[in-house]
Amino acid sequence: MSDVLTFIDENLGRFRAELYDFLRIPSISAKSEHDADTRAAAEWFSERLREAGLTTETLTTPGHPIVIGEWQGAGPDAPTVLIYGHYDVQPPEPLELWTSPPFEPTERNGRIYARGSADDKGQLYMHVKALEAHLATGSQLPVNVVVLAEGEEEVGSPNLVPFVEANLERLACDLVLISDTGMFAEGLPSLLFSLRGLAYFEIHVHGARSDLHSGEYGGAVRNPGNALAQIIASLHDSDGRVAIPGFYDDVVEWDEETRAQIAALPHVDADFARALELDDLAGESGYGTLERLWIRPTCDINGILCGYTGEGAKTVLPNHALAKVSFRLVPDQNPDRVKGLLEAHLAAVAPTGVTVEIRELHGGRPWRASVSGPAFEAASEALEEAFGTKPVPMGGGGSIPIVVEFEEKLGATALLVGFSLPGCNLHAPDEWLPIENYEKGISALALLYGKLG
Amino acid sequence: MSDVLTFIDENLGRFRAELYDFLRIPSISAKSEHDADTRAAAEWFSERLREAGLTTETLTTPGHPIVIGEWQGAGPDAPTVLIYGHYDVQPPEPLELWTSPPFEPTERNGRIYARGSADDKGQLYMHVKALEAHLATGSQLPVNVVVLAEGEEEVGSPNLVPFVEANLERLACDLVLISDTGMFAEGLPSLLFSLRGLAYFEIHVHGARSDLHSGEYGGAVRNPGNALAQIIASLHDSDGRVAIPGFYDDVVEWDEETRAQIAALPHVDADFARALELDDLAGESGYGTLERLWIRPTCDINGILCGYTGEGAKTVLPNHALAKVSFRLVPDQNPDRVKGLLEAHLAAVAPTGVTVEIRELHGGRPWRASVSGPAFEAASEALEEAFGTKPVPMGGGGSIPIVVEFEEKLGATALLVGFSLPGCNLHAPDEWLPIENYEKGISALALLYGKLG
Repeated sequence: MSDVLTFIDENLGRFRAELYDFLRIPSISAKSEHDADTRAAAEWFSERLREAGLTTETLTTPGHPIVIGEWQGAGPDAPTVLIYGHYDVQPPEPLELWTSPPFEPTERNGRIYARGSADDKGQLYMHVKALEAHLATGSQLPVNVVVLAEGEEEVGSPNLVPFVEANLERLACDLVLISDTGMFAEGLPSLLFSLRGLAYFEIHVHGARSDLHSGEYGGAVRNPGNALAQIIASLHDSDGRVAIPGFYDDVVEWDEETRAQIAALPHVDADFARALELDDLAGESGYGTLERLWIRPTCDINGILCGYTGEGAKTVLPNHALAKVSFRLVPDQNPDRVKGLLEAHLAAVAPTGVTVEIRELHGGRPWRASVSGPAFEAASEALEEAFGTKPVPMGGGGSIPIVVEFEEKLGATALLVGFSLPGCNLHAPDEWLPIENYEKGISALALLYGKLG
Repeated sequence: MSDVLTFIDENLGRFRAELYDFLRIPSISAKSEHDADTRAAAEWFSERLREAGLTTETLTTPGHPIVIGEWQGAGPDAPTVLIYGHYDVQPPEPLELWTSPPFEPTERNGRIYARGSADDKGQLYMHVKALEAHLATGSQLPVNVVVLAEGEEEVGSPNLVPFVEANLERLACDLVLISDTGMFAEGLPSLLFSLRGLAYFEIHVHGARSDLHSGEYGGAVRNPGNALAQIIASLHDSDGRVAIPGFYDDVVEWDEETRAQIAALPHVDADFARALELDDLAGESGYGTLERLWIRPTCDINGILCGYTGEGAKTVLPNHALAKVSFRLVPDQNPDRVKGLLEAHLAAVAPTGVTVEIRELHGGRPWRASVSGPAFEAASEALEEAFGTKPVPMGGGGSIPIVVEFEEKLGATALLVGFSLPGCNLHAPDEWLPIENYEKGISALALLYGKLG
């Protein structure tokens, strides 16, 4: 392995320069005017995989292409690791809030600022360089490798599960390795033990045939705006718990060991609140902040629209109110079951004189890692060797629905090892990745591959 | 009086044609590109007053002009009636929903369709024609007359109270007569016994320094959208009453006679609901629909805006939520006191972890008519003679704040006699006034003047 690590050390400058070329391609999957850029990013990435020593293929989908890279040099009896990532990025707007242009990678304060630096081009490319280091030095890489890079992660991966289902044999693997998450803090490598799921709805409250005058009709009819507020308020009790009957039935209480590990993490509520410019944190009583973020479900308003919202005092009694409401779910909650519970709850609490309608927008199941297996142990050792610190376990508050799909469709274990940092402006202006994490991360991944035999 | 009524009958065609000229002037006070039209409407109206036999003056204000017409022929010992109305109109948009052009008066089904036909050019011009009938026939009009027509009613009359205060002597009167309201039903003339007041607020809930990712932060911080819903829900109890402590302290319970009169009106809840395409009506328990509309206060959402409200599922945890909330007030509630009660209530119910801010947008006091005085009796007789039916008493659900101001500043009694009908599309496309009401209304007003001596 020392040859591999030396190769990495000696080529870090080139690895960074290559990443910057990748980051310069504005592969914004949500915008059709960037379709050519998105395809160019796929082709650029495929070419780098080929140069690293993999055979590659760029496959068309109804949307953006999927790039496959393969190396079978470990032989038919060796295990296979599937490395998943995405080469598409979020739109960069608002452009005026970027300190340097989003598609011109710029180094400041030890960070690489660019759209996609953390999410996910930087982390995906670390795998390519770790693979190159093994193959260029003739190391005895103990696993076969399949790299799967998609270009639609930022638009909900509409073609990925169908692609996986259609290519089960080609994608057959023992481990799915994903670097699209972060570390708990600077210098503190982390291993993800969970991700929350998601159940996202629109609630519509319909009133009279048209907007009414609040003087002529106020007091005689149910106001959809007031009714919607009443419905939203009914979703929580005074302890900050979700008040939908049955909502917690499937919630697995986490083991005491994990809760103790969470409690031992370097987290201070007051600092967390101050960074957000808040006086107080809030949430479900009986759980610490990190527990509320990682191992407890939530119900959050994402948007509300009703009536007149411009300047001044329009005396309208609106005939419609809309809320976007989403639930973050934890094992073993299921978005379909949550939908049923929500429908039953709304049927019970909806006031008379209005019609309440629920529309399901998006769902994804929660995920819990196999934290005791050999892959988890290997990752722990590799991260400790590369960063000089034993990694901490952490949960993921967000949702990556494809993780559960990969595990189920491929019969594999998923392992999430990420290198971004809190505050790295994912999906926001001035996205960044620490140069140190990019460089140590390549070594960590190379070490990890070596331990997966 | 028979000469006066004959004169009216013989000139109805001309009276209608003249009104149509008035309606053709797009005097939209809210739009500065129509300032010349608004001034033209003032000048046109002043000229018609002069032709009717009054001395006139068009006075400038910081906004649109105020037209004054005066006739002192009844002598210094006779009482004076001040007739108030407005020559400005609401914007006509959305234009595509008009069956005929808003500023091209069109007769269909016995109605005059045009912007301003009901609100208020048609009703204001009826007074001019009633005065002309008296002055042209040499009747012994027993009252002196001041006509005050403003051009800013549709933008909140910002210059009217200062004008009244600066012209107390010139506007001195015993009775303020206003035709800017409606009748209870077709063929059923009505006398207004009350108007509700208004207290209109914005409630802002502020959260973190920026919008957050609902996965990364959901569960750890208070969501301003959920907090706002909780605050709005706290404004009512389960009986539909406003749950702000002290809110009903100043509410005068109406007398049994008025409540009996209201109960005797031809109103059917099912028909009312059906016209609005609602299954059920709703509101404060213990009161009928007309009582809830006229003699009971309300709290209605006029608008809510929070977070992401476009298409699809954006997983944002918003840092701001806004509601426009207004209260319709009844005697003797006061908007300033309601503001204080609301502030105290919000301070008591606002959850931790967010900042709640109240902004006052608009206020107006409720009004209760002197229903037993000679002016009210005179109006009742005049309406019965003109329409052949005894007028019914009705309340006004809306607010005309200037009524209370006139009474207080001028030490006069206000009398509201209106001729529009329910469903006449005030402030909406296809505004209309019944031709019958325009014509019988002119006679009714002429009869009323004759009885005010």
